[in-house]
Amino acid sequence: MAAKKDRLFLITNDDGINAKGLEALIELVQPYGKIMVIAPEDGQSGMSHAITVKYPIRLKKLEENDQQVVYSSNGTPVDCVKLALNKLLDKRPDMILAGINHGSNSSSSIIYSGTMAAAMEGCINGIPSIGFSLLDYSPEANFGSILKYAKIILENALEKGVPKDTCLNVNFPINTYQKIKGIKICRQNKGVWKEEFEQRVDPMKRDYFWLTGEFKNLEPEAVDTDEWALHHNYISIVPVHTDLTAYPAMDHLSDWII
Amino acid sequence: MAAKKDRLFLITNDDGINAKGLEALIELVQPYGKIMVIAPEDGQSGMSHAITVKYPIRLKKLEENDQQVVYSSNGTPVDCVKLALNKLLDKRPDMILAGINHGSNSSSSIIYSGTMAAAMEGCINGIPSIGFSLLDYSPEANFGSILKYAKIILENALEKGVPKDTCLNVNFPINTYQKIKGIKICRQNKGVWKEEFEQRVDPMKRDYFWLTGEFKNLEPEAVDTDEWALHHNYISIVPVHTDLTAYPAMDHLSDWII
Repeated sequence: MAAKKDRLFLITNDDGINAKGLEALIELVQPYGKIMVIAPEDGQSGMSHAITVKYPIRLKKLEENDQQVVYSSNGTPVDCVKLALNKLLDKRPDMILAGINHGSNSSSSIIYSGTMAAAMEGCINGIPSIGFSLLDYSPEANFGSILKYAKIILENALEKGVPKDTCLNVNFPINTYQKIKGIKICRQNKGVWKEEFEQRVDPMKRDYFWLTGEFKNLEPEAVDTDEWALHHNYISIVPVHTDLTAYPAMDHLSDWII
Repeated sequence: MAAKKDRLFLITNDDGINAKGLEALIELVQPYGKIMVIAPEDGQSGMSHAITVKYPIRLKKLEENDQQVVYSSNGTPVDCVKLALNKLLDKRPDMILAGINHGSNSSSSIIYSGTMAAAMEGCINGIPSIGFSLLDYSPEANFGSILKYAKIILENALEKGVPKDTCLNVNFPINTYQKIKGIKICRQNKGVWKEEFEQRVDPMKRDYFWLTGEFKNLEPEAVDTDEWALHHNYISIVPVHTDLTAYPAMDHLSDWII
């Protein structure tokens, strides 16, 4: 890891350039090195690892000084990371940080998350990356009380390193500052969003649907998962990789007649 | 698995309702049971696991008879699966099939793929699911020559089952019908897209970017990967799961001072 004066952080999110969580993350990182921020103009929650191939991508430079340069883009969180790595930065960043997300990215929510997709894009590119999320969906969520824990995690990542070929999915329990019991290394909980679409009729008498949903924990008894940790007021850290191969299933498939 | 007359397949894709690959997949599946098709109105390549939360989702019924019902939607491939499971179908489908994609979803391309996201959404919901892709990006790609292999894979999946908590990522080598050597069970290759944005200036003198890119295989020597199989004219099958936990990295993190 580079010395502090040479350290370069790339910061993005999926809630957009004006989100409080992004501001909190920038504030956290400023003492540790130089920063490039590039974040979506608008909220891009639920965009997962989407990339923009049908439309041109635009960039707007919002701020530039010796320590920090800030861009917004009409692209997705993953577009933002790609633009920074391939177009805007002269050298590879030492670390990519995404968030702090307004809302949970634990369990299977990681699959839908633009925040974690940005961290995973860093991972694919071999750059130590962390996504941070707070279990509070409010635009006015209070990030102040979790920054001291985020600082511990960032300092460990800088000193001890993020394990090779992984990124970290860090979730903070909802604003129970005084009750946080510690930080747990966890596995991803098995869960599913049970969607209930809200069906409405527009003024032209045509049906339309809004996606809503409720999370269902499929292993509520397990005690080594991120869901368990968060519900018991621990901060959860799940190391995440981008190799989706289900290795144990390869044997099963060798029975196939092919 | 249900008897043929009771079998229900859900079919979607990311190239859109009018894609030739979707037509080929429907043709493949028709002899095996009833079908619900729900596919995006337009191409949704690169949409990964994105869900639509900012805009209302609309549905259009295009066809309905005893054997088959066909919808299009303005949503993403994952929206399509969610709509079918939660709003359109009275019972769970026996299998979800996505594709046949026009272009490769091998190696890390799986992460960006709307086709494979649809299959993974099936997997999250505990439904046997397969994504099919042909390594030919042309809208006029010739799917006829691969259907006999797709049939073998479908019949194995119906008879022997897709391993629990996985879905299958099936890729067909580019149109070398006479040269296909067989079907290989593989792991996901480690690779990365090296993006080179094409920078242009619009009539208003503002810059914009188009995302382009070139795939780089990070382990060209490995012989057990989907990339190797495809480049040697084998069909690749990678069993895929949605637990992104990097289990070996959990030990490394236990060294952290937290």
